[in-house]
Amino acid sequence: MNQTFQDELAGMLGERVSFSLPLREQHSHGEGYTAKGMPDAVVFAESTEQVASVLRLCRKHLVPVVPFGAGSSLEGHVAAVRGGVSLDLTRMNGILQVSAEALDCRVEAGVTREALNAHLRAGGLFFTVDPGADATIGGMAATRASGTNAVRYGTMRENVLGLTVVTPAGDVIRTGGRARKSSAGLDLTRLYVGSEGTLGVITEIQLRLQGLPEAIVAATCQFERFEDAVGTVTTALQSGLRMARIELLDEVQMRGCIGYSRLEGFEEKPTLFLEFHGSPSGVREDAEGMQELALAFNGNLFRHAERPEERTLLWKARHNCYHASKWLAPGKDNMGTDACVPLSEFSACINETKEDVRESGLVAPLVGHVGDGNFHLGIMHDPQDAEETARAEALAARVAERAIRYGGTCTGEHGIGLHKRRYMAAEHGAALDVMRAIKLALDPDNIMNPGKMLPDGPGG
Amino acid sequence: MNQTFQDELAGMLGERVSFSLPLREQHSHGEGYTAKGMPDAVVFAESTEQVASVLRLCRKHLVPVVPFGAGSSLEGHVAAVRGGVSLDLTRMNGILQVSAEALDCRVEAGVTREALNAHLRAGGLFFTVDPGADATIGGMAATRASGTNAVRYGTMRENVLGLTVVTPAGDVIRTGGRARKSSAGLDLTRLYVGSEGTLGVITEIQLRLQGLPEAIVAATCQFERFEDAVGTVTTALQSGLRMARIELLDEVQMRGCIGYSRLEGFEEKPTLFLEFHGSPSGVREDAEGMQELALAFNGNLFRHAERPEERTLLWKARHNCYHASKWLAPGKDNMGTDACVPLSEFSACINETKEDVRESGLVAPLVGHVGDGNFHLGIMHDPQDAEETARAEALAARVAERAIRYGGTCTGEHGIGLHKRRYMAAEHGAALDVMRAIKLALDPDNIMNPGKMLPDGPGG
Repeated sequence: MNQTFQDELAGMLGERVSFSLPLREQHSHGEGYTAKGMPDAVVFAESTEQVASVLRLCRKHLVPVVPFGAGSSLEGHVAAVRGGVSLDLTRMNGILQVSAEALDCRVEAGVTREALNAHLRAGGLFFTVDPGADATIGGMAATRASGTNAVRYGTMRENVLGLTVVTPAGDVIRTGGRARKSSAGLDLTRLYVGSEGTLGVITEIQLRLQGLPEAIVAATCQFERFEDAVGTVTTALQSGLRMARIELLDEVQMRGCIGYSRLEGFEEKPTLFLEFHGSPSGVREDAEGMQELALAFNGNLFRHAERPEERTLLWKARHNCYHASKWLAPGKDNMGTDACVPLSEFSACINETKEDVRESGLVAPLVGHVGDGNFHLGIMHDPQDAEETARAEALAARVAERAIRYGGTCTGEHGIGLHKRRYMAAEHGAALDVMRAIKLALDPDNIMNPGKMLPDGPGG
Repeated sequence: MNQTFQDELAGMLGERVSFSLPLREQHSHGEGYTAKGMPDAVVFAESTEQVASVLRLCRKHLVPVVPFGAGSSLEGHVAAVRGGVSLDLTRMNGILQVSAEALDCRVEAGVTREALNAHLRAGGLFFTVDPGADATIGGMAATRASGTNAVRYGTMRENVLGLTVVTPAGDVIRTGGRARKSSAGLDLTRLYVGSEGTLGVITEIQLRLQGLPEAIVAATCQFERFEDAVGTVTTALQSGLRMARIELLDEVQMRGCIGYSRLEGFEEKPTLFLEFHGSPSGVREDAEGMQELALAFNGNLFRHAERPEERTLLWKARHNCYHASKWLAPGKDNMGTDACVPLSEFSACINETKEDVRESGLVAPLVGHVGDGNFHLGIMHDPQDAEETARAEALAARVAERAIRYGGTCTGEHGIGLHKRRYMAAEHGAALDVMRAIKLALDPDNIMNPGKMLPDGPGG
């Protein structure tokens, strides 16, 4: 980053740019993934027009730009591995429009999920996508995030109606719109959703919303065998039973949750955490239907949680799986995997994975969004211990490669970032060339989040 | 098309290529739109590899390729406006894989919707997207089709998991996969869905399926005022009431249906046709909830149709709206519009549209997928009458332009093709340049369905 560029940037932005070491350090990494990439400057953008000005300047000087939101990415998306500008969008936190009639809203990229839902609650609305972390909507769009509610309401792919994007040339475009569906030309919205900041900067997002459900019931059910938990879910999905959340925790993860979150009355067995949304009688019927199914699959200890505080306890325990893993293996780090496979392959995939875990000798609790075929291992390892870390990485690689072999993906919801670029060729084959051609066409100077998502090669 | 190319094509394909006038004429147009474009040859491809060979040859000789399925496109997509090869995919009609556990299947592009559903029924499964016509799955993917079930199950955008695509260079790529969600790189599946054959040829499609619902109930409700019908639907959607179909027919369309389809016991008033899918008690609760809501909006004549033959009668009448329009205006053609707007703007948009219809002096029944904000006018006109046709076109233009003004789209489900290219700039603004850049990057010689979707200009 040359002095001319720095001077021009400072002249343009004043106190909205910083070259301070602590701020740069804070913007050099996300969560989970240890690799860092120090940016040369941190810019706090306050408007789409400012983002456009920064991009025009960066393009003129061929300076990399790395969009930054809550910094909760797990795959190194926000590390400035080639330096340049970390473009912090958290000051763009305006909620621009909400419509209860159209069930949609428009927000700036820096609005967080929890801030949005706090704003929507009074109007009887909610935004469904819940990745656990209080991520920004812009970051969630850029990584195609999902989470526990996706089985019913979809991921960011289904819930983003339109975008404002600043292109690497500094042009401002709007994609999609407010219509729930459209056949008008190339689906640019879906192209930018999940593009991980490699094609441009998302500055505004039009979102689908839902009405707050009249009634919510949670339930849990424990099983002796994994296959039975999965069989219950598969049969429920086939029969159209409506579940808002279906989470599967293995016996190791349950041991952690019982210990860390003080869950009472549970055994260390594969367990489903469920939630039903609808009318009071509807959710009761759904929960009872699920209970009947679970019994047919030898499920036991089926328990309903109708009171909000019971539900909160359950979902807090679910969201604290990460901390529960640390409780299981004090002092160790959690290396997360993110495989997603067709439901028909889920049991086989999990069984082989658990065999791998046993062979690895590592503690690696498993938790999954089983309704979508998505599961995470938390591979506990000591990053100071090279041999253990290598074993953890080998285990993670086997999980990713197996998912691809089973017709699935190495990442259901975390994204590629830095860490999973190595699987892109295996997963996409010749389609990777099409991705590279698009990257080259839309960001010919490769200033947008270079070194991410696409493995090294033309345009990568 | 020069002789060398013709000879090479014939040598490669034998009887799978035809230069006969009747076959070329049959492949020169779809439905609805009168413009034709005669191809120089018709190729009946039988495999992805054959498609790849044809594309390599066409690219070498810079010959246009127009993919052709059932020929049911309404917007001129299949007209070979620059000659070349009409690539008929109907012989690629294999159902390659079906999984009840994963709720998915893989089909060749030439499989039709009805053939697929006939195949799936015995296994208790169905494919939800229903545009009315018995289109091919490839054509439906290429135009991002939807229809009456989309409000509950989504459009082709939500129901295509992955694709096999032949690029203009003759490379075969696979996009997406069988996982229900993925964050692995650019969403090429969604890029090709709706690309109208302008980026490559879709030869295989991985689809999401649903279990056949245990119970289905249809219902109808009539209203004095449009706003009340729309208010009923909006409120139902906010409250999470689960409808599989919500169709709105205006009083003119109802007059046609009563007359043409001999619907008994209905008045010529705005009418909702509804369908509920679920458990027997669930659908009853949903239908009753809807009835209560409709009453609050002054709906009357609420009638349930629980017996299959009653339902069939209703939906047959709905699907025959096109013929009912012709019955209303004998000897005239039906020019269809396809606006889709946010639900909050739906009433205003419809009211202004009906005012336009009155001013036009034309017969133009209205029917809409109101749950998605999508509606069609069937503008009846005599194509031999230039003045009347001009009035019809002016009316259609006002509908498209108004939809865009209201934050919606000129086409909710029919696609752009030839006829709606004129609205692309108004709808997409500078984003059109991004579409053009992608077209140029992926089809640099512009051999894929040239003259469609993108208005004339670079890469168009």
